[in-house]
This record gives sequence, C-alpha cells and structure tokens, in this order.
Amino acid sequence: MSHAAARTEIPTALDAERGEVACRLALRHAGARDVRIAWELNGPADAPLLIVAGGISANRHTLASAAFPETGWWDEQRGFGIDPTRFRVLSIDWVGADGSIDAPIDSADQADAVAAVLDALQLPQAVAWIGSSYGAMSGLQFAQRHPQRLRGLVVISGAHRAHPFASAWRALQRRIAALGLESGDENAGLSLARQLAMLSYRTPEEFAARFTEGTTVDGDVVRVAAEDYLDACGARFIGRMPPVAYRRLSESIDLHHADPAQVKVPTTVVAIAEDRLVPLPDMLDLSAKLPHSELHVLRSHYGHDAFLKETSAIARVLRAAIETST
Amino acid sequence: MSHAAARTEIPTALDAERGEVACRLALRHAGARDVRIAWELNGPADAPLLIVAGGISANRHTLASAAFPETGWWDEQRGFGIDPTRFRVLSIDWVGADGSIDAPIDSADQADAVAAVLDALQLPQAVAWIGSSYGAMSGLQFAQRHPQRLRGLVVISGAHRAHPFASAWRALQRRIAALGLESGDENAGLSLARQLAMLSYRTPEEFAARFTEGTTVDGDVVRVAAEDYLDACGARFIGRMPPVAYRRLSESIDLHHADPAQVKVPTTVVAIAEDRLVPLPDMLDLSAKLPHSELHVLRSHYGHDAFLKETSAIARVLRAAIETST
Repeated sequence: MSHAAARTEIPTALDAERGEVACRLALRHAGARDVRIAWELNGPADAPLLIVAGGISANRHTLASAAFPETGWWDEQRGFGIDPTRFRVLSIDWVGADGSIDAPIDSADQADAVAAVLDALQLPQAVAWIGSSYGAMSGLQFAQRHPQRLRGLVVISGAHRAHPFASAWRALQRRIAALGLESGDENAGLSLARQLAMLSYRTPEEFAARFTEGTTVDGDVVRVAAEDYLDACGARFIGRMPPVAYRRLSESIDLHHADPAQVKVPTTVVAIAEDRLVPLPDMLDLSAKLPHSELHVLRSHYGHDAFLKETSAIARVLRAAIETST
Repeated sequence: MSHAAARTEIPTALDAERGEVACRLALRHAGARDVRIAWELNGPADAPLLIVAGGISANRHTLASAAFPETGWWDEQRGFGIDPTRFRVLSIDWVGADGSIDAPIDSADQADAVAAVLDALQLPQAVAWIGSSYGAMSGLQFAQRHPQRLRGLVVISGAHRAHPFASAWRALQRRIAALGLESGDENAGLSLARQLAMLSYRTPEEFAARFTEGTTVDGDVVRVAAEDYLDACGARFIGRMPPVAYRRLSESIDLHHADPAQVKVPTTVVAIAEDRLVPLPDMLDLSAKLPHSELHVLRSHYGHDAFLKETSAIARVLRAAIETST
C-alpha cells in the first residue's frame, strides 16, 4: 500500500471517540478553576497511546476518522508519521480555546490538563508526546511535570522559551486584534493579526519564489502580490477562535518557560533551519540542555510551518522516534 | 581632532540654507503635478556637492548646522562619513512627505524632484548620491535617469526592487494604519504600524541580547519585554508624518523597480548581512547586475538600521567612496 493510499483511507468501523473531562485545575497564573477539557481518541482501544499536540489554533481533531470524517489539522500525517490503525491518538482542545478563561494561561496548565484526561480515561502511560509549536512547548512541560506518563517526547519547532523577537511579534498581533475590538471591527483586527502571524510562520524565501512585485490598481491603490494570499489566510481564521482565546493562548506562548535539564524523558528535537519564529539557535540550545536528546535539523522554505507542509521529512522523523519509544 | 569632537562641533558662521522649488513634475503614476520641493544645503558654497537621502521618514535636515542646529536624521555621520566643511550637502523632503499627494508616488519621481532642485539651484553635477534605504532606491533611479548629474553613487541597504516578503510586511503596516483611521484612532494605528516596521528594521539577534521573556503584570496582562521599547518607537513616530504621506511613501517602496544594467555611474553597494527588510541575496543580485560596482558586506545585529547605528563602519565606506568620486 502506498503512503498516499494510506493517508486517504479512513477505517469504516467506529474508530474514534470524543468526550469532555470536568475537573478542577490549579492554573499557574489564574488560580484553581473548574474546567472542561475536550478530548478525542482515535485508534484501537488496545493500541499503544500517542499524545499529539499542535499550535495554538490546533484542536483535539488531529486526524480524520470514520466517526469524525472532517479533515484533521494534521491529516497529512495520517498513515505517514502517525498511524491510527497501530496507535491510539489522544489530543485535546487547548485549555482556554473556548474563550472561557480570561486570565493568563501557562503551557504547564496544558500539560496538567492532559494529565487530568489520562487520569479520567485510565490511560497510565503514552508511548510518546508528539508536539509541534505550542504543542512542543506543552510537551516539554508535560515531560517535566509528569515524567512517569511518557516514554518519549518529540518536539518540533518549539523550544524551552519563547524567543524575545517572536514575543514582540506576537505582542503586536495581540495589539492589532485589540485595535479591531476597540474599533468595533473584531474580525478586521483578528484577520490582520493572523496575516501578521503568517509572516512569522513562513519565510522570505517562499514569498520570493511565490510572489512578484507590487503594482497600482486602477491607478490609485498599491497592491503587493502577497495580499490576496494574506487576505485568504485572514479570512479563514475568522470565527475559528473567540478573541479572548486568541489573546490568552497567544500570551501563553510568551509566558512559556521550561527547564530542559528537568526533562528526563528521551527527546527527539526537530528544528527547521529557516524557522523565523523559533530560531535554530534556541532549538540547538534546547537540545544541548536536554539530558537525553537526539537532534534533527531539517531545511524548509516553509519555515515554522514545515511541520504542516514537509510531510515526508516530518513523517520519517516521527516513525523513527515512535519505533524507538514503542 | 578626534572623530567624537568633529561630530559635535557645529561651525558658527551661517553655513546652511533652506528653500523650496516650485515646479511641475511628470509623476510616473500620478500624472503632471505642481509640487513644491523643500531642500536644504549645508556646507561651503564652493565645495563639491553631495546628495544625501535616507529612509521614507528622513527629510531635508540631514546634518545639524549653525543655521539649523537641531539634530539631523544622520547627524552621527557629521564629520565622520560626511564632512560639511569639505562638501556641500543637498537633501530634500520627499515628494509627498507633506501629505499633499494622495496618489501613487514612484522612486523615479523622487529622482526627478532632485534633478529639478539641481536645475533651480544651478548645481550641474554632484560628486555622489549617498542613499540609504528608500534613498538608495531613489539614487538608483537618479543614476539611471540623470547620469550626467552624478560621478558616483553609494547605495546602502536599498536594492533595485522591493523584496516580496518585505512588501507584504509593509502592506500589513498600511492596513494597520488604515484600521486606526477607520476606528477613529489615527495615532494608535500609526503607532502600531511603526512598531511593526521596527521589527523589520532590527533583528532577532538584537532583541535576544536586549530583552528577556514575557511576564504577567498584576496577575492579568501579559507583557513581553520589548513592549516598552516598541511603545516608545511608536510614540515618537506620531505626528512626524501625515497618514496619507505615510501610506503613499510606504507604497512607493513597493512600487520601486530600477534596472541596474542602466546605472552606468560607478556604484558602491553596501549590504548588511543581517538585514531582514532588504535581504543580502537582493543586494548581491544588484551588485552583480550593475555595470560598475564595488560591494561591501557588513555585519550588524542592527540589521536594516545599521546605516543609522554602525557609525564607524558606514563612515569608512562613505569616506572611501567619496574620495574615489571627488
């Protein structure tokens, strides 16, 4: 069976389930809160468990299934790097993604939320936490706080800290969203913030290959070649997240601080040389400070978004890491 | 005399003058217009002429003088790279900087405006055009359109085209300014646009050295370490330029397109390896396509702003280039 065939084939038996865990979490900044943590499990009940987590706009629906056939946020990896016929995949909606918490949220809170779901579902241990971007940050927290729950960790394009330049970039995105709210045009603000974020997710190299120069339209407006693309990115983002969730999860990246020396779980670090949001030096630093790490540096003109775009290269790393931990 | 002493010493005799040239310019996109071009000349009347031009927010007041003692936008170079006791320095306010033109403005229009000023002041030829950023772009246009007016050209951090990624970055700045205008808070929009621009002028390396991580303030607001700095940059920008001037000059960068093969004047190209707005590959491409060019690649963690910050390194290049052309 080719990979392409594997990726598009969805088992016909009921293969996935969803639920919510109601519990009281001691949030690091926001204090003790009653929260409901939405989860999804995809794969055979007796298969070894993988915890999979993506960026702040990802959710519990990682892979399509017979039960939930909509495209998952990481569907490109279905049957490639993540095989839901051999593993059971657990993902959650981020704490705060429903807009119910208007207070600082920490990546450690996300780790504790996943631990609470494991408790509730009586799943003692996972083969690995596979995290990209914010999911990698939360994975470092999970490995640090709940080491007995995990045999391995894969962190892709997420480090032990937010880089100060990336933090400034996100702070401006939050201010743009706030300006939209103040002006009564919430969607315009969120769309613009997302467009700015796209510039940090992608690279000049990709834009140079894709877009040409600016021109005048009707002799008056100047329009640069990337604007149609950015407009589409902004439009797709609207309605995906309440503004308060966007703000608090974006902030959460900037509050993130893990101590790599305390991560005892064997960790596969995947860095993208061209990533402008999580620069290579921070990923090298992370790898050097982890007691047990294996470093992969990939090249991609998709930069930070490589985990969503470089399907084959990411799949190879995932398969090897999962085999090692299984 | 040390350089530091030279830099702060202002001659006491009346050494500079200002004026305006009223003329009709055939603007490339906006058609024929009656414009007033504000100029400043600084230095002995019989000294060889230098034309000096900076970024879109620079103006005719390049260096402080006895006549106009306020700090000029490139005062760091006074007595270092540019000596107004040996040379006469001409600069203009950009066409459109007063907000009088609400139509696309081309870098070629700026070149023609300078030529009109040279005509009016009966200054047939300059030793060199020294241009940084947008001033470099306009200098390429000037050398292409008015080659007999110039013996040499120095282009610092400005190429024959705007890079598509940088254009996207600027397009978002213009949209942010527009969102501010729509929301009735013009200053908030302009400030935010400027803050976003600062991220393109500087580098992650500088931010990593200068700023630490984000923290919560009063247990609620998350504030990243660079925000005070960015706030100050935004606040300083307010009132410096009418919104229409900001929009049209920003657009002008994205409309810029020069043909290096048509620049016959010997050109010194100064590239900053870390420049994120005018990437090194574009500067290398420019240098390769110019018939007569000498390339200097400098390193600076100030990125695009190096021309304002790396006083000694820039001065060395300027002095050598000016001597060659004199």
